[in-house]
Amino acid sequence: MNDKQMLMIPGPTPVPARVLQAMAKHPIGHRSGAYNAIQAEVTAHLKWLHQTEHDVMALTVSGTGAMEAGIINFLSPGDRVITCCNGKFGDRWAEICTAYGLNVEKVTAEWGKPLNPDDVRAKLQADTAKDIKAVILTHSETSTGVLNDLEAINAAVKEHGTALIMVDAVTSLGAISVPIDAWGLDVVASGSQKGYMIPPGLGFVAVGPKAWAAYETATLPRYYLDLGKYRKATAKDTTPFTPPVNLVFALQAALQMMREEGLEAIFARHARHQKATRAAVQALGLATLGADDCASPAVTAVMPTQVDAEAIRKTMNQKFDIALAGGQDHLKGKLFRIGHLGFVCDRDIITAIAALEATLQNLGCEITPGAGVGAAAAVFAQG
Amino acid sequence: MNDKQMLMIPGPTPVPARVLQAMAKHPIGHRSGAYNAIQAEVTAHLKWLHQTEHDVMALTVSGTGAMEAGIINFLSPGDRVITCCNGKFGDRWAEICTAYGLNVEKVTAEWGKPLNPDDVRAKLQADTAKDIKAVILTHSETSTGVLNDLEAINAAVKEHGTALIMVDAVTSLGAISVPIDAWGLDVVASGSQKGYMIPPGLGFVAVGPKAWAAYETATLPRYYLDLGKYRKATAKDTTPFTPPVNLVFALQAALQMMREEGLEAIFARHARHQKATRAAVQALGLATLGADDCASPAVTAVMPTQVDAEAIRKTMNQKFDIALAGGQDHLKGKLFRIGHLGFVCDRDIITAIAALEATLQNLGCEITPGAGVGAAAAVFAQG
Repeated sequence: MNDKQMLMIPGPTPVPARVLQAMAKHPIGHRSGAYNAIQAEVTAHLKWLHQTEHDVMALTVSGTGAMEAGIINFLSPGDRVITCCNGKFGDRWAEICTAYGLNVEKVTAEWGKPLNPDDVRAKLQADTAKDIKAVILTHSETSTGVLNDLEAINAAVKEHGTALIMVDAVTSLGAISVPIDAWGLDVVASGSQKGYMIPPGLGFVAVGPKAWAAYETATLPRYYLDLGKYRKATAKDTTPFTPPVNLVFALQAALQMMREEGLEAIFARHARHQKATRAAVQALGLATLGADDCASPAVTAVMPTQVDAEAIRKTMNQKFDIALAGGQDHLKGKLFRIGHLGFVCDRDIITAIAALEATLQNLGCEITPGAGVGAAAAVFAQG
Repeated sequence: MNDKQMLMIPGPTPVPARVLQAMAKHPIGHRSGAYNAIQAEVTAHLKWLHQTEHDVMALTVSGTGAMEAGIINFLSPGDRVITCCNGKFGDRWAEICTAYGLNVEKVTAEWGKPLNPDDVRAKLQADTAKDIKAVILTHSETSTGVLNDLEAINAAVKEHGTALIMVDAVTSLGAISVPIDAWGLDVVASGSQKGYMIPPGLGFVAVGPKAWAAYETATLPRYYLDLGKYRKATAKDTTPFTPPVNLVFALQAALQMMREEGLEAIFARHARHQKATRAAVQALGLATLGADDCASPAVTAVMPTQVDAEAIRKTMNQKFDIALAGGQDHLKGKLFRIGHLGFVCDRDIITAIAALEATLQNLGCEITPGAGVGAAAAVFAQG
């Protein structure tokens, strides 16, 4: 049905009406006191969301642009880096490093499995010359619904002592705690169309003092993505280049909503939705890619066996106006992904699961009607 | 007065209600047939606007990001380039080239004067080894309101034969004819918050076949700004990275409006507004920076002598809710700039001039009331 689609994909995520309305205001000039005031508020709220006292900068880019900025500002050609790859996005950061002439070593895990922190530790312990400059990883691997153990991998990086840790938190920030200062994370990148509840077009990079020290001697070329320019401007409540003013209006409204809800409540909601979604699909006899103990708070990847994943996506879309994501790269056609990230309430989960049950019935699968919704409801009943 | 501000700055420019409403729709998934259909329409209209049969690509960046992409995709470290500098933006492209290790030679003109095509020609004629790889210039220099003679400079580049021409058309595209195919322009960059009539957040790069040939051997590093990725994706009506979906809704609506108006009418409107604005400020005894024969279609820079430029801006803003731009860099405080770009009608010009008259009176300047509005009206009376 026209204009009735419900987004249950891992981005763009649903946008609150309050945010859409804020975004629809006429733009203002970005070199004005009125804009500076918005920027000051937004920066303060971003630091709160990132649990950091240090810099958080907004760039006009997608999540990939934010992550590229997070990598190239702190490294020089030929630098040795470890990229952690267990999905499409881990692979992408390795591609960026290669494009910039870095000396890339991969730590890999099968798609659907989490990275083993000991694999990273072993590489770092073997580096007695201390020439590994950075460990780059994806926290929540959107392509597989696997959450990597950032805390443990970060501990290994801290034991090494000199390497920076650079984190793609694109689908984890705002969904699960990423305590940047408490853990001493050096670089954390994210994007607007995820936990932030606003449309795509803004990327965010948080940078700590150790990374800024590396910035001083890093020689990879950059200009538009030069975070030093953003740091200087952000300190003056302005931007180095024209900001996407209307998306900043949206960001202001969304961050106000997040502050009203509170970090703990936001994280608890995402944890509940992850648990309910997994319980529901498992109760319907569907396998999840990735084990429960490494499940992403943002997205659940489901591998149906009785029926084609794309047939499920198509029926969900055409009959029930719910958009699910498909598999990526070699998993294309083999799984579907349910996003439960950002502006999602318990009703949305029940809705998606009810529609999934109806879809499976429609496609002739043998299921117990109500098993999925009941399993989700049982999770919600726990409070 | 709250929410009453009128933008007469060279970006962001006024946005039509139709465009704001399109932008306020809930986002859709960007990996969907519905998105592909929008992208296909938008790409066709962008080619129309760019007067080209070749590629026009949209990136999630500001105008600077678009221009950086337009430079770095076609060059290699150490390449010799000529950057043409007669204002803030020309200087910026030289900075980008320097940041990427290019061998930069500047052709300069005083701020407020146009570039002399013969200066470019002389450099190119002296290059008998044909190792100049590119000539980079700003068509409409937003900082000074000067329009450079792109056609003549392009002719000099064509005589050279091997150098590419890379054009910052950020405030000229959609305001004055930039006939890309007819002139054989290799790279043309622009940004959404200008002639496009939509808020900032999208950058555009048009690329011709000669530039694509250079792309094949160019080795400057790039990933997020790698235009080859955008070319491949655009050919399939998709994007390499998550697009700013709501800004693409806005772009779709704005391009539909531009097609309804027609290119010739759009260019005639901008020419009329430029002429009326200049006639009006001159009739009020104010000097324009830059001569009439090299006036930008987008912005008029005015140098008041009787009264401080910033006082005029402040009164225009506080008493009449009209935002004007100030001077940049060494011209800060010395001039104000009236934007007349994008969604601007004859009434807007009359309005701005009437308010400027009232402002000058308020500040105690001796003017003939009505002289400005009368001069603008005389231009409009010519049809």
